[in-house]
Amino acid sequence: MAKEYIAVNSNWDVTRCIDEIRHQAEDVDEIYNVYVIDDDNILIGVLPLKQLLISHSKKKIANITSDDIISLKVDTPAEDVAIIMQKYDLVAAPVIDDLGRLLGKITFDDIVDFIRDEADKDYQLISGITEDVEASDKVWQLTRARIPWLLIGLIGGILGALVITNYEDMISEYAGLAMFLPLIAAMGGNVGVQSSSIVVQGLANKTLGLESTGKKLLKELGVAIIAGIVCSSLMFAFNFFFFSDSMALTATVSIALFSAIIFASMFGTFVPLALNHFKIDPALATGPFITTINDIMGISLYLLIASLVFNIF
Amino acid sequence: MAKEYIAVNSNWDVTRCIDEIRHQAEDVDEIYNVYVIDDDNILIGVLPLKQLLISHSKKKIANITSDDIISLKVDTPAEDVAIIMQKYDLVAAPVIDDLGRLLGKITFDDIVDFIRDEADKDYQLISGITEDVEASDKVWQLTRARIPWLLIGLIGGILGALVITNYEDMISEYAGLAMFLPLIAAMGGNVGVQSSSIVVQGLANKTLGLESTGKKLLKELGVAIIAGIVCSSLMFAFNFFFFSDSMALTATVSIALFSAIIFASMFGTFVPLALNHFKIDPALATGPFITTINDIMGISLYLLIASLVFNIF
Repeated sequence: MAKEYIAVNSNWDVTRCIDEIRHQAEDVDEIYNVYVIDDDNILIGVLPLKQLLISHSKKKIANITSDDIISLKVDTPAEDVAIIMQKYDLVAAPVIDDLGRLLGKITFDDIVDFIRDEADKDYQLISGITEDVEASDKVWQLTRARIPWLLIGLIGGILGALVITNYEDMISEYAGLAMFLPLIAAMGGNVGVQSSSIVVQGLANKTLGLESTGKKLLKELGVAIIAGIVCSSLMFAFNFFFFSDSMALTATVSIALFSAIIFASMFGTFVPLALNHFKIDPALATGPFITTINDIMGISLYLLIASLVFNIF
Repeated sequence: MAKEYIAVNSNWDVTRCIDEIRHQAEDVDEIYNVYVIDDDNILIGVLPLKQLLISHSKKKIANITSDDIISLKVDTPAEDVAIIMQKYDLVAAPVIDDLGRLLGKITFDDIVDFIRDEADKDYQLISGITEDVEASDKVWQLTRARIPWLLIGLIGGILGALVITNYEDMISEYAGLAMFLPLIAAMGGNVGVQSSSIVVQGLANKTLGLESTGKKLLKELGVAIIAGIVCSSLMFAFNFFFFSDSMALTATVSIALFSAIIFASMFGTFVPLALNHFKIDPALATGPFITTINDIMGISLYLLIASLVFNIF
């Protein structure tokens, strides 16, 4: 919030007003709007420079003041300020306190910086970079910003490996099972990132509907069921034609793929909503944490289903 | 580019100028700047409203015109316009043709929209969503926007499965090898996304240095070597203590992890730079394509290294 702004009293006439602006203007870099206040410093409107230029010199300011003004409360969160200013294409907006007194103004460049910073932050989280780094930074800075995700991914990979160890005998017997381990894990990760990023963007742009979490999950379930049917049918067709010797493997892969897609989409939708509910940045759910859990869950589902299916066939 | 702008002739005096502004202002929603032109419509400067308000009425416009103006050529790419306007915190900028003639203006809200759209587009690409969708869209729209990546991921997973098939006998014999298949694939994917997103953000913000592609790859190689040593040492330590019965597996996993990290970081840096060179959106390299290739490459490296190492031990 910049302190430099121009305010005039509603009781003045145009001539006095222009005089005062001349005086005040020396301290201000750019004049976007002239705010009109009363004797108690309460904001009562805005005086577009255009009006000032086209009005007669004896006209009272109160008469050419526009009350069509969008002011921001001093405790409005930055996200909401950005949304309001974008929505109304505001160059600048006055900031007032609870009593309506003029405190300062916010200008569009504050908002441009904010939008850019927020977008950069969300982008870094989804790409697994923990600090604000640029390609021009030093090797060590770049490495430090990237190692944390890699370590989380490594721990996740180790947990996945421990899950697989439990099924080592089954894999020894049916080595074909190993073929689809990375596929199931990756698909779970992919679906989860899609789901969580849609929620995160919806929260950031305030376009997310106001329906309950239950309804959001239900809608996501619809998406996941369609996507799951498409992917697992294609997978079934592929395995049926190319690995037709093992009906058990074919069935396992399709059922596991479908299950992993459903789980990942539910989990990817729920976690950012829950984080947001507890005032934690929901974008955290687009990064390493959710991908890793979905990887592990995909592997677990796949091997569990395999152990059931291979018992039947 | 909006056509509504106010232009005055440098030969006028302040009084005539104010008269003209009053006249022209009726067609213009907001006055950000008054542009000063000569008789041939060549832009010669800007007249800040502040100057107009604080100058004497007989003063010649030419004398209070500021030539400290940043104008945009009509063929400037939108990305560059955004960068210039942000850099100089411009509310509006005049647009001129090759001869310097005033054609119109661009205002900050065009830029805010552009920045937001670009950020949204990059975010969608990295999260594997092909269309501009919002959480409030219909189930079918959401599904259609997500299926393409899932299919690319599926094809990648199948290609990975075909690579693994070639090593089925080895996996039958050493089922422990299957344990680390998802880990190596995922780590390749993670590193690749990090590398490509740093390049994409650097290109978008124009913060990427001007050094040659070779130098950028060399720097990235430095990062990858450090990250690779850290991750593969930790992996070695873990396997050494928990799976100490198989030195071959321990060695394979660490060597493969290191190799996959190096490959993925080089590939993830090179591809967006190459796309950008050929005027293709480099953000395409953050999505399904690069992750999938890095997954497959990680699997291939792992099994190839395993077949070599298990022959030695």
